[in-house]
Amino acid sequence: MSDDEKIDEFGLIAEWLAPLADNPTAMRLSDDAAQLIVPDGQALVISTDMLVAGVHFPIDGDAALVARRMLACNISDLAAKGAKPYGCFLNLGVPENWDTAFLKDFVATLGAGLEKYDMQLWGGDTVRAAQGFAGLTVHGLLPEGEMLTRRGAHDGDDIYVTGTIGDGFLALPSLGAAYADPQPPIDFGQAVRCVATSAIDISDGLLADLEHICRASQGGMTIEADLIPLSADGRAHDNLQDLVTGGDDLQIAFTAPSAEADALRALAERHATKLSRIGSFKKGATPRVILQAADGRDIALDIGSDERGFRHF
Amino acid sequence: MSDDEKIDEFGLIAEWLAPLADNPTAMRLSDDAAQLIVPDGQALVISTDMLVAGVHFPIDGDAALVARRMLACNISDLAAKGAKPYGCFLNLGVPENWDTAFLKDFVATLGAGLEKYDMQLWGGDTVRAAQGFAGLTVHGLLPEGEMLTRRGAHDGDDIYVTGTIGDGFLALPSLGAAYADPQPPIDFGQAVRCVATSAIDISDGLLADLEHICRASQGGMTIEADLIPLSADGRAHDNLQDLVTGGDDLQIAFTAPSAEADALRALAERHATKLSRIGSFKKGATPRVILQAADGRDIALDIGSDERGFRHF
Repeated sequence: MSDDEKIDEFGLIAEWLAPLADNPTAMRLSDDAAQLIVPDGQALVISTDMLVAGVHFPIDGDAALVARRMLACNISDLAAKGAKPYGCFLNLGVPENWDTAFLKDFVATLGAGLEKYDMQLWGGDTVRAAQGFAGLTVHGLLPEGEMLTRRGAHDGDDIYVTGTIGDGFLALPSLGAAYADPQPPIDFGQAVRCVATSAIDISDGLLADLEHICRASQGGMTIEADLIPLSADGRAHDNLQDLVTGGDDLQIAFTAPSAEADALRALAERHATKLSRIGSFKKGATPRVILQAADGRDIALDIGSDERGFRHF
Repeated sequence: MSDDEKIDEFGLIAEWLAPLADNPTAMRLSDDAAQLIVPDGQALVISTDMLVAGVHFPIDGDAALVARRMLACNISDLAAKGAKPYGCFLNLGVPENWDTAFLKDFVATLGAGLEKYDMQLWGGDTVRAAQGFAGLTVHGLLPEGEMLTRRGAHDGDDIYVTGTIGDGFLALPSLGAAYADPQPPIDFGQAVRCVATSAIDISDGLLADLEHICRASQGGMTIEADLIPLSADGRAHDNLQDLVTGGDDLQIAFTAPSAEADALRALAERHATKLSRIGSFKKGATPRVILQAADGRDIALDIGSDERGFRHF
């Protein structure tokens, strides 16, 4: 491809992206910056996640896969904070093998995702790169001071997870839907904000992410293995350890007082969200997760605590 | 380098970055997201710029160069908007040749830059990559509705630039200070916000950037070549076209009513900023820049309008 064709390609991206940025903050990408007015009493929740070809998606992965994973990884962080998606900035590194058709498909998939999550495009930066990368910096809204964090778990709180665990791991080799098109529970995350005491999205693996809550909330967790929700594929897989350390589920794990059990069941039903209580939190205990069998015995994992989830590097 | 050493490296980055994020918004990077409260009556100005090894800096460029260029490119956008730097998110793609010493130097240079610009670190994402990249998404503050844009130039407005033009171009081959450590006029940008009618930072090249204002403000510009401020190196260079199309100056160009000339001179003096009036804006004229010699004749450039500045791809 000649340099001229490359330039045209980037002109096309800008042309295609501008209609997605038809909002007062972005002014259709007509300037170098966006001007954002935050509604009174609201705080912004901001997070960023970047995916690199050959690290987070296959080098020859198709455009829809890249766009959906990029959106889902970022939306997942907002979901776990209880924030409503508001707007985002796109950073795109475009390698040789992303041709015009790829980019058109990427923009179309991004547009559909933004519409689905009711999120605006505010700006971004597109650069030439030898290795493809795609990232967002996402901004969500919630009432001031109400962001869910990893820190607030109380002694005796129940531990819940949405969806099923391990399907991200199982879907990765075949790029199945649980990996290629994950559905973070963004509406349920906002609904649960006033009930949950701490929360995290399951991206590194259930155990690793729960241990983040343990460390931040200064306590330990006991998880009943039989209560961990599995899909049919998960039940057919003979190694639980794979499923609870595999990562990429993009579901939410959270803690809540046991008195809220009925309220949570009602919220889950209203949002058509599968919700499972899987254990409880003990304040002051060693900050780690103990996996318990039905007979009450601890399940030993043949990995160290450091390896309980996907390390990003 | 083994995988274990790589993991340690990333642990170190997080450890080194956390002290730079000692603010209520970032909570020392203890969570996946930052919670930002915007002061009443203030708007956020948001922009993002990403630099890729081999495209925007040499593959073997040192850490201080990468950190300073990344900061300056992003601060420059805020300067041209009249915004005060507030906080940022860092996206880092780390290749094999960025070893621990490199990363330590990068973080130290970033820290010094953040301190200099009074900007907080709120979060980020660090990933392994074959090709290094470094970008920020920067957030600035200004009173609601007061962001400088490219659109507001009035008929008869004077055109001004800060600093000298072409030094970015001249310094690039040797990675001299004007390229490696540019100084965007961030304080002057805020001061000039209430006086200027439109503004842009000079990143693509003086002519290309002025033409962005022409198109957005729907008018043409006449620039007097003799008034373009040059450094001693610039005066010694025998090709003006190189200097006005070379890019990377990271100064500000802006328009202002001629009645503000005295006020602007006083502001420039107060902020120790070199300020030069270089021409005037005519509303309704063909949206392009005419370069005029001292004898009033147009200076023809041997490039098309499309090539009047650095294209990022």
